[in-house]
Amino acid sequence: MIPKAKGGEDRLIDWLAARIGDGARIGDDAAVLPPGAFAVTVDHQIEGVHFPPGLDPAVVARRLLAVNLSDLAASGAVPRYAFLALAAPAGFDHRRFFTSLLAACRKFGVELAGGDLAKNPDRLSASLTLMGTKAGRRWIERRGARPGHAIWLGGTIGESAAGRRVIERGGVNDGPASVRAAAKRAMRRHLEPRPQLDLGRWLSDQKAGAGLDVSDGLARDLHRLCRASGVGAEIAIESLPLPTRFRDLCAAIAADPLSLALGGGEDYVLLFTLPEGVEPPGAWRIGTITRERKVTMIREGERSPLPDVGWDHL
Amino acid sequence: MIPKAKGGEDRLIDWLAARIGDGARIGDDAAVLPPGAFAVTVDHQIEGVHFPPGLDPAVVARRLLAVNLSDLAASGAVPRYAFLALAAPAGFDHRRFFTSLLAACRKFGVELAGGDLAKNPDRLSASLTLMGTKAGRRWIERRGARPGHAIWLGGTIGESAAGRRVIERGGVNDGPASVRAAAKRAMRRHLEPRPQLDLGRWLSDQKAGAGLDVSDGLARDLHRLCRASGVGAEIAIESLPLPTRFRDLCAAIAADPLSLALGGGEDYVLLFTLPEGVEPPGAWRIGTITRERKVTMIREGERSPLPDVGWDHL
Repeated sequence: MIPKAKGGEDRLIDWLAARIGDGARIGDDAAVLPPGAFAVTVDHQIEGVHFPPGLDPAVVARRLLAVNLSDLAASGAVPRYAFLALAAPAGFDHRRFFTSLLAACRKFGVELAGGDLAKNPDRLSASLTLMGTKAGRRWIERRGARPGHAIWLGGTIGESAAGRRVIERGGVNDGPASVRAAAKRAMRRHLEPRPQLDLGRWLSDQKAGAGLDVSDGLARDLHRLCRASGVGAEIAIESLPLPTRFRDLCAAIAADPLSLALGGGEDYVLLFTLPEGVEPPGAWRIGTITRERKVTMIREGERSPLPDVGWDHL
Repeated sequence: MIPKAKGGEDRLIDWLAARIGDGARIGDDAAVLPPGAFAVTVDHQIEGVHFPPGLDPAVVARRLLAVNLSDLAASGAVPRYAFLALAAPAGFDHRRFFTSLLAACRKFGVELAGGDLAKNPDRLSASLTLMGTKAGRRWIERRGARPGHAIWLGGTIGESAAGRRVIERGGVNDGPASVRAAAKRAMRRHLEPRPQLDLGRWLSDQKAGAGLDVSDGLARDLHRLCRASGVGAEIAIESLPLPTRFRDLCAAIAADPLSLALGGGEDYVLLFTLPEGVEPPGAWRIGTITRERKVTMIREGERSPLPDVGWDHL
């Protein structure tokens, strides 16, 4: 008989293949996929950079998938295949990580089709490549914004960045119950973002408009959308959708609400444009695309340039 | 005008897009690829794990691409698209890395179509996802080995592992010139493997046979091939292809040649099977596939089980 002394990696891959079930593609040098036109995205999650040290591997796995799914949502794609590169320190609970990842994949209709495992002595680092097929009649791109388009946000902003600060300071343990509840919601929002796949699918069926997901902050990502489309924008600060009790929470953690909303990042909501008169489901209108290539904010009637601030990964 | 204060990441992406040229897909949330059937693979390179600390970023970039290309070669694929997740410490020379990566991509006909950049405080870590289309008439898989097939190796083994040891001990600085030259070749082989894409293309045109690339050592990878195909194998130790002066080099670095050849790993040559009588170009026959599911080595006329030893990424 073939000796049983398989390495830990081979044992883990067998365990995974059994859980993925018939037709599991993992384990070969490359996974062969059926023909199709694909949207492909890749994103990192690194311990101490993208999430707090020591976070439950089950949460890390869900977060990794969610931030990638958000990119596919912003492209108008239906998620199909995932490829994982995982590098973990000694003692990392791989099975807890993969049990959570596979459950999350199943929920979103994603097949884990391949990957690579390695050691990383210092910290957990993972990158996921996701491939999706077209959800509706077209792909969504950044360059589709036209003067006169309305600018929309698919959800509230600033909450994830507030959650990151709450985690860094060890929670909000005093003050009114409503603020403590807002702090908990913010932490959950930061750790487990919810990709807007349904909204992306709806956008992919519209005739016109641009879109992206707000990962590096509204200001920076709006600048990117405008640059890609060769247009400008005007947004009304008063119309920005903020979470319940957001100002109270910011006061409790000594943060500026507007800074978090404009530049905090990791909101993972869709920022998109539509021709005037087209009403998206469950979204907030925040401004209008302009021909003049300036990005302007209007606050208490005053107009000023919206600075290109936000998260910079370098 | 739009403010010029773009972040370092946006500047780097603009710089990259200009170098990739018209139709660059990078910069959107996801890259949209033309329809096709794809083979997809992902591999890591982590500083201090897969390559020595402080290695020239230009070499890291070529190595990252090469080890991934080897997986596509083993699948019978022509490389097409690459997606990079790069996490680097402060001060990393991104432009040197990308200049080298783009040059290597051009050489192999690969388009860098997307990626994600992040900080990693401790060490450089990179993962690359490669997508390829079918090179010949079929994909190559591990499960295609049949009893009676001849077993072949596309190149010499053990040299990369010897090179790793030479690097760890700071080179071979005394002894005969022939051994010092062998040490230099081994270091180069370790740092810059050469993916066997032409051989993979040839194999993809054959009617039958299995294949994979030897990344974790001949013994472990032959066991994997046998398990996937439900067969066994007999290999002749005397027929293993070793590099010139390999035994002398191993003596100089106090390493056992057979251990490096069987279990050293990172050889990045193709291990494949073919029906008896089919002669591959530039390869070495090392044994025969058997019906009995044992993996046996024959050495000086003695038969013994080939242990499932080699590199384990966990």
